Amino acid sequence: MGEKIVIVGAVAAGPKTACRAKRLMPDAEITIVDQDSLISYGGCGIPYYVSGDVADEDELRKTSFHMTRNEDFFLRAKGVNVRTLTRATAINRKDKILEVENVTSGAKDSIPYDKLVITTGSQPFVLPIPGADLPGVYSISDLHKAIEIKQQLATGKIGKAVIIGGGAIGLEMAEAFADLWGAEASVIEFMPQLLPRIIDPWFSTMLERHMESMGVNIFTNEGASEIIAGDDGRACKVVTANRTIETDIVIMATGVRPRSQLAEEAGLLVSPFGIVVNDRLQTSDPDIYSAGDCIEVTHMVSGQKFMAPLGSLANREGRIVGDNLAGIPSTYPGAMGSFIMKALERCIGATGLSLESARAAGFDADAAITAPSDRAHFFPTEAKIPLQMVFDRRTRRVLGVQGFGPMTDAVLARIDAAAALIGKGGTIDDFSLCEMAYAPPFATALDALNAAANVADNMQMNRQRNVSIPDFLAWMDDFSSQPDWLALDIRHPAEVKPFMEKFGKAWSELAYDNVRTQYDTLATDKTLIIICDAGTRSYEVQIFLDSVGITNTLVLGGGFNVITRMEPHWWPNK
Amino acid sequence: MGEKIVIVGAVAAGPKTACRAKRLMPDAEITIVDQDSLISYGGCGIPYYVSGDVADEDELRKTSFHMTRNEDFFLRAKGVNVRTLTRATAINRKDKILEVENVTSGAKDSIPYDKLVITTGSQPFVLPIPGADLPGVYSISDLHKAIEIKQQLATGKIGKAVIIGGGAIGLEMAEAFADLWGAEASVIEFMPQLLPRIIDPWFSTMLERHMESMGVNIFTNEGASEIIAGDDGRACKVVTANRTIETDIVIMATGVRPRSQLAEEAGLLVSPFGIVVNDRLQTSDPDIYSAGDCIEVTHMVSGQKFMAPLGSLANREGRIVGDNLAGIPSTYPGAMGSFIMKALERCIGATGLSLESARAAGFDADAAITAPSDRAHFFPTEAKIPLQMVFDRRTRRVLGVQGFGPMTDAVLARIDAAAALIGKGGTIDDFSLCEMAYAPPFATALDALNAAANVADNMQMNRQRNVSIPDFLAWMDDFSSQPDWLALDIRHPAEVKPFMEKFGKAWSELAYDNVRTQYDTLATDKTLIIICDAGTRSYEVQIFLDSVGITNTLVLGGGFNVITRMEPHWWPNK
Repeated sequence: MGEKIVIVGAVAAGPKTACRAKRLMPDAEITIVDQDSLISYGGCGIPYYVSGDVADEDELRKTSFHMTRNEDFFLRAKGVNVRTLTRATAINRKDKILEVENVTSGAKDSIPYDKLVITTGSQPFVLPIPGADLPGVYSISDLHKAIEIKQQLATGKIGKAVIIGGGAIGLEMAEAFADLWGAEASVIEFMPQLLPRIIDPWFSTMLERHMESMGVNIFTNEGASEIIAGDDGRACKVVTANRTIETDIVIMATGVRPRSQLAEEAGLLVSPFGIVVNDRLQTSDPDIYSAGDCIEVTHMVSGQKFMAPLGSLANREGRIVGDNLAGIPSTYPGAMGSFIMKALERCIGATGLSLESARAAGFDADAAITAPSDRAHFFPTEAKIPLQMVFDRRTRRVLGVQGFGPMTDAVLARIDAAAALIGKGGTIDDFSLCEMAYAPPFATALDALNAAANVADNMQMNRQRNVSIPDFLAWMDDFSSQPDWLALDIRHPAEVKPFMEKFGKAWSELAYDNVRTQYDTLATDKTLIIICDAGTRSYEVQIFLDSVGITNTLVLGGGFNVITRMEPHWWPNK
Repeated sequence: MGEKIVIVGAVAAGPKTACRAKRLMPDAEITIVDQDSLISYGGCGIPYYVSGDVADEDELRKTSFHMTRNEDFFLRAKGVNVRTLTRATAINRKDKILEVENVTSGAKDSIPYDKLVITTGSQPFVLPIPGADLPGVYSISDLHKAIEIKQQLATGKIGKAVIIGGGAIGLEMAEAFADLWGAEASVIEFMPQLLPRIIDPWFSTMLERHMESMGVNIFTNEGASEIIAGDDGRACKVVTANRTIETDIVIMATGVRPRSQLAEEAGLLVSPFGIVVNDRLQTSDPDIYSAGDCIEVTHMVSGQKFMAPLGSLANREGRIVGDNLAGIPSTYPGAMGSFIMKALERCIGATGLSLESARAAGFDADAAITAPSDRAHFFPTEAKIPLQMVFDRRTRRVLGVQGFGPMTDAVLARIDAAAALIGKGGTIDDFSLCEMAYAPPFATALDALNAAANVADNMQMNRQRNVSIPDFLAWMDDFSSQPDWLALDIRHPAEVKPFMEKFGKAWSELAYDNVRTQYDTLATDKTLIIICDAGTRSYEVQIFLDSVGITNTLVLGGGFNVITRMEPHWWPNK
């Protein structure tokens, strides 16, 4: 037999590594150990299994050709040995032996290796609050937990659910409870917004409002301080600083931590973000590789290290480890956090850095916020997809893109194309010229992504000067915060009317197509905040006003198409 | 006033040039002339207007904020003069004067220019056959023709339609007649396939079979030789070498030619592909620019010149001319033919070169043909999307991608991401690592595009050896053409059974998960054509058989998921 390869962890990166390595080295003797009995499942599918979209847990473990990926499958089809219910307890690096024990019998064993691969994944972070360990409190850590949750739902006794954590998994779980089971779902998020760090606040507000409109309760800026048990000993209340929420089940979705203890105890270099690896995915011991949720990853845009616990990356990384085990010098460039999420009838996606993250990483970052159509505006299924392009003013490099739209693949298409370009260091010009496919049922002649780049170009060249959305919203809350600002609403007079009536002296109007002939009627002692539906006309007006010497203007980027989706309390007739 | 800019043509590139230039140079005096009365319309929307998806012709002329883009709009909103019904008759380059005449009154005029822009677009090529000029024969050249066609449809007298030409416009028109008006539509295409040159034959066959299954008649390999008039003098029959088709209307969709006569007569350099321009979109006269359907374009992948008459490109090019008029040195890198099309309940898309075009252009091209899922295979709306990646064996550069799938944006997402990477010279490795966004409702953990790249990688490294689809189909038509071939069907025995029964000695079976234990039962005197559903398992089996010395094998790339969509006549139980 050939080289002995031992892999610890059999969910995503581990099996991928094993299968790729075995194909490249048919003689290799490959063994995967896993402490669980269920292996190689689509963990990202758990919320859809809980919701009922996926009927059976077994579906998450099947191949696309309907075989269940169990030990027998790996042995017969892949030629890979899998030892389930087998916990790795220590790595003897000197003698190149993995120490294991059977989790049922306690029997110990030693498995010699030539090359070891650590794919131990991540574990849920559990908030250290009273009641976190009560029955009825679940984290989304593995398939067993998911099966338990679904069994609870099937009893018909779950009328209310509290989800602690407003990240992607928390929101997907909220949807699972609310949408298909009709439970009253409440999401508690400690940070001021959903999807913190991933999405900028104006995008997360659009998401928040949509989920609320579909019946999900969202409480941001609130940490769970305690979980209280009922008479039956099960969790029945979640306490925050502002309220106590009754519930039949609690989902703890407060993030994950790399499962790096085995590596750490073996003396491998481990950072707070995970096991440290080089571009070949070798750990500090060249005979030990690592991949998946447990490794520290380089952010391709910021160059900084981060955790990137995504099933998609685990698969890519596993393939690279497989290559390297077989002597192919594949390297991993890092990740950029491409992300997409179904949220009831909407979807939200992002790639690269958010504006806040980009600024925190030291970029001279700005954001082109737009609200383009996903397909020709005359096509019946057209929808607006707020789209933001974050760029570096110094270098014109595009740093990130975010989108929010209907539950189709329209946002996905723009995020994927953006990810492709950002991964190649794409600039505003690359995005402007990127030849997106066009036909009216699929796109606009100048695609939404091209249009966002053109706005970024105009901003970077100082042809377009925006008011920031937070500043605009703060002003709408309190006009005295910026007493010299005046809205210049250039929409159709019928659209403007309720605003003129409600906001009195803070609002003025001049229809877009009258600006060239009537600009001399505009107030010149104020900063004009130019407002339209999408920002496009406002930019045209700004650039025209500049040419006639009225330069004290700011554009509301993305216009009211963005603001309405944030459903501000001050919206007329609300 | 500032510089005098005169633009000939007011459909897409012309207005875009004008508006961008005016924004950058508010002092410029910009005039567009157009021989038509209707301007600045979404020409690509004509099939959807004819079908009724778009109710009113005016919708194609409106902005997204519901203003009609007529002369008044351009003057009031954009500060651009438009003279409709004004034909440009000659360019006096020496004195920098455009000669025009009013098409109704015949009145002549001279318009002096500092810079001239030719955006005259394209004109339909009309087959020089008897009857081509009969009433009832329409080309899709402008909005007037579209209005006439729709008026015909509204009379209720169009029960049958013949479309001459199986390109994108012809197929979109066939759908318009068949889908919403219930007419019997017949498409005649001179070449052996639909979408010739754009799409490889196996993809166009999938499209052809789908359109036929939805009731559209398709006759490839047939040229129209004559159109015959009925008693009322209108076209009523179309004659080919094989048949005479009765019809109530004939659509001539046999391609377009650049409208370059004005430029040619002015002594500007014009090639068969259009007006010759440099990267700044200047013609051979540096004071004259050109953009849109009328220019010759450099193919970004092949480096060759071609015609690229697409509304999406016209808009990009117009912006670049606007920049250059204003002194911004923007350049146009060329185009790569990104393409997407709705075809009834399916969609087809492509970017870059097809396999045939790539080989014709001198590349050592091969194609990875796959049939991945568009979203997690356990997600309810999952569909297979046959996806092909054309790559250069010498350089690993990706040359093109094609996809066929359901009428969602799933194919669009992969085409757009591919276009982004191909535009940056992306290699197989770039595609393999491209960080496509993932969640089960939107993609597979390893996205379809990543998976196609991995197949391309295996092929380029000679780990995977495919049979070509044409060779496979020829063999299925006549097993004696390759007497030493033997199918090795590794699918589930229940799936294999009808094939074993029908194809006797040409077929053999060994289930995928039995190969490692029973490979010694395989025939070794034959070339084994390994067959599964998607090609993935076949590759695994090939690489395993290689390791045990059975190397005379070929994989059917994409597997039966591709072949079934081509609906071959020999399919069992058909």
